[in-house]
Amino acid sequence: MEIERKFRIKEMPDLGQYASKRFVQGYLCTSPTVRVRNEDGEYFLTYKSRPTEDLLAREEYNLPLSEEAFEKLIEKCDGNIIRKTRYFIPLGENKEGSSLTAELDVFDAPFEGLVFAEVEFPTVEEARSFLPPVWFGEDVTDDRRFYNSFLSETDPETFHIL
Amino acid sequence: MEIERKFRIKEMPDLGQYASKRFVQGYLCTSPTVRVRNEDGEYFLTYKSRPTEDLLAREEYNLPLSEEAFEKLIEKCDGNIIRKTRYFIPLGENKEGSSLTAELDVFDAPFEGLVFAEVEFPTVEEARSFLPPVWFGEDVTDDRRFYNSFLSETDPETFHIL
Repeated sequence: MEIERKFRIKEMPDLGQYASKRFVQGYLCTSPTVRVRNEDGEYFLTYKSRPTEDLLAREEYNLPLSEEAFEKLIEKCDGNIIRKTRYFIPLGENKEGSSLTAELDVFDAPFEGLVFAEVEFPTVEEARSFLPPVWFGEDVTDDRRFYNSFLSETDPETFHIL
Repeated sequence: MEIERKFRIKEMPDLGQYASKRFVQGYLCTSPTVRVRNEDGEYFLTYKSRPTEDLLAREEYNLPLSEEAFEKLIEKCDGNIIRKTRYFIPLGENKEGSSLTAELDVFDAPFEGLVFAEVEFPTVEEARSFLPPVWFGEDVTDDRRFYNSFLSETDPETFHIL
């Protein structure tokens, strides 16, 4: 089970100092989510169940693929292929003692300029009680427009979140 | 982890008395196996890791799909769509006390005439010590030609196992 919250960014941190990975991903299906991803040369098929009502928690399986299998499956994906860099930004410990990390996604074309951060939590309670850092903006956990699967189906020309 | 052995059939049992299901399935990828299946109106995406050396054991995930998702994904599958009826034939208990069932697959066109049985076991030891019933034929566990994924990639005109 994946429990996470998603936020827009008010003020960009200095990204140079953080570890990052390049992602290329596409969607075979969006309900449920069936995604293929190249994660800096590691390849995965990911299945996510339909979200629960408040979108906080989803069942998720990450299953390894070979590069060949990835190349074959990405060809079958619908809509836009998503390219982005994910930065891993430590947020320190919360009051329950869990080390939290912001995963900041900076998108390439065709969604260049789009950026948001996700934080994963060990429990729904910790997700609910999370105090976002000052550089985070609006909570968009419940906003489907910030789903990568939504972006895969969206015409970048008419995408007006930026 | 799925631990199973596969056998050809020497003498067909009387199928009328056994429970059965209709399967329609296709393959998005065969290494690893990424399969979509309609199982009598229940829909699944299945991932199977590449088999271990002796083909007895594979990691397997069965993930639910909606009918819509199935219809979308089956369109993306390669090669032949496999249609078959699976009969569930109780084999009684083995000496370890496990209730075993033969899953007898009877194929429709384009592989009509093809039939084989699989038996699943709780442990590799029980798989190895299994005594097949007299109506079972040759053990084809290690024969890739009896993989459904192989059939999906095979020209039925040149398929000469039957």
